[in-house]
Amino acid sequence: MPDRNRKFLLAQRPEGKPDDDTFELVEGDVPEPGPGEVLVRTVYLSVDPYMRGRMRDAESYAEPWDVDEPLKGAVVGEVVESNGGGFEAGDVVTGDLEWADYATAPGSELTAVDPDLAPISTATSVLGMTGRTAFFGTREVAQPTAGDTFVVSGAAGAVGSVAGQIAKMAGARVVGFTGSDEKVEFLEDELGFDAAINYKEADDYVAALAEAAPDGVDAYFDNVGGPITDAVFQHLNLDARVAVCGQISQYNAEEMPTGPRKLGQLIGKRATVEGFLVWDFHARFEQANQQLAEWVQSGDLQYRETVIEGLANAPDAFVGLFEGENVGKQLVKVGEEPDAA
Amino acid sequence: MPDRNRKFLLAQRPEGKPDDDTFELVEGDVPEPGPGEVLVRTVYLSVDPYMRGRMRDAESYAEPWDVDEPLKGAVVGEVVESNGGGFEAGDVVTGDLEWADYATAPGSELTAVDPDLAPISTATSVLGMTGRTAFFGTREVAQPTAGDTFVVSGAAGAVGSVAGQIAKMAGARVVGFTGSDEKVEFLEDELGFDAAINYKEADDYVAALAEAAPDGVDAYFDNVGGPITDAVFQHLNLDARVAVCGQISQYNAEEMPTGPRKLGQLIGKRATVEGFLVWDFHARFEQANQQLAEWVQSGDLQYRETVIEGLANAPDAFVGLFEGENVGKQLVKVGEEPDAA
Repeated sequence: MPDRNRKFLLAQRPEGKPDDDTFELVEGDVPEPGPGEVLVRTVYLSVDPYMRGRMRDAESYAEPWDVDEPLKGAVVGEVVESNGGGFEAGDVVTGDLEWADYATAPGSELTAVDPDLAPISTATSVLGMTGRTAFFGTREVAQPTAGDTFVVSGAAGAVGSVAGQIAKMAGARVVGFTGSDEKVEFLEDELGFDAAINYKEADDYVAALAEAAPDGVDAYFDNVGGPITDAVFQHLNLDARVAVCGQISQYNAEEMPTGPRKLGQLIGKRATVEGFLVWDFHARFEQANQQLAEWVQSGDLQYRETVIEGLANAPDAFVGLFEGENVGKQLVKVGEEPDAA
Repeated sequence: MPDRNRKFLLAQRPEGKPDDDTFELVEGDVPEPGPGEVLVRTVYLSVDPYMRGRMRDAESYAEPWDVDEPLKGAVVGEVVESNGGGFEAGDVVTGDLEWADYATAPGSELTAVDPDLAPISTATSVLGMTGRTAFFGTREVAQPTAGDTFVVSGAAGAVGSVAGQIAKMAGARVVGFTGSDEKVEFLEDELGFDAAINYKEADDYVAALAEAAPDGVDAYFDNVGGPITDAVFQHLNLDARVAVCGQISQYNAEEMPTGPRKLGQLIGKRATVEGFLVWDFHARFEQANQQLAEWVQSGDLQYRETVIEGLANAPDAFVGLFEGENVGKQLVKVGEEPDAA
């Protein structure tokens, strides 16, 4: 085991899009696990859009990161040293850990990953936070039923791609907004979406949606906000449900728009817009994961991961989220998988 | 009974704020009631912001008016001739009738007004559509409970002034946004609001609300939209409820803003935004009116009406709604009350 460890700090808070000045890679000793702690070797690091909010010094649901402190994110890794806490060397675990080669954590803050269930990377994707977000946001908030039209923005992303497939299984017509022709093809041909719209090519989202969702929109899963959401609101049906999961189009705005501007469409349509966080469904995470794993194993639920190699490239992976570089879940492969190690 | 009748037509669809070119007053014969119809002499005509939507040639919950056709609105009047339909001459009725001195309607589309219950004008205000809108929007959608902070925009209007008092009776701290110092005084001193903000004088709505609602906002009854709503969204508490009743700040926009722009605040706060129409609670109108009448009689519920005299001034009364000329319900007195007739 090497005795040196690299980790990323938040060098400064970004104005607008994060860049090289945002991140600093520092080297130091591999940390020692304290009592009840384990030392984890990072295999996969998850980068997620919500992390942009943690770079901002503003109250939000996720605590802001401090400048000069390590960035943290969902990690899948191998326990290499245990000082109690319920895990042994060789165990595969997942938890919220530093963007680092190695990190320590109390065993109580880690969850065991079963390598026989599915590839271990899925513990951060379809069987992880983004899969569960799609699961609860679709089934509990947007609530598509048979015959409904369900629209999802950020449709080829880690959450959107799973949400659309869950809506499809519920019997809905599923329409996605996404950012390239390749992703349109992926959604329509591989995931079974009924239609997908490349928002970077469409001139008029309202018209494009009129064609893709001719019966209007009964349920909308919003990951993006901005003009796409404006257009969807024009098509809401009576008693439509909008699940607000993310607003990625707004996260890098230097001057944050301050609010909703116009909600008039909701009145006549008696529509409901509801923000949610996956953590609120914490008590049912296991149930969700069992269902998701069953669907993955049966082939009913496809998932895709985009993997960038090397911890040093984690900032590029993160910034790429806002450029739509990823299909499905964006991961950084920091170390070898345990089997191959 | 005079044999001439005046009525207002929609002369042309307004761009932006309605003006003299929008309305045309025409004179003709007093109409004859057909079988099952009655002839009603207008006493009070209600003008309401939602009518701006009916002047637009766009799909909405209320059907667009046709150009060169009569405008219609809630009327309280006296039956002067009956051709069946369950009413007799001398009865006081309310219904959706033309902006006219006289109008015919099927008896089945009219409701009896009890002149002993309250002044008959209240059949269009606190015991009419606006009172019921406040009743259901507050109790069923915004749902303030004891200890909550409840904010209402358009607070001194026909709906807002009643909504705030109902929230107060539910035990909430009540804060209103309104458009003059006189209205601030009215809300605080006469209606018992805990605080009111004059949005025409306040430089920074977010800061003003931080002071008026130091514990954040649990329930928001929105009649206005735009920057006031943007500011309220900054203060939403966990599990906040937003009832979207109207968006008067947007109705005269020449280019309608197309949608919500940003809904990010809803995510962390798991807040719900719900549009509603009072018609959805139709089955419970009688129940609402009984409760409202009881409160009015006990003095628990204050109401205010702003009355402009003369049918010819109905357009001014309507346009004045968008300038905030009214305190409480805006009415046009078209004819004498039955007792005085």
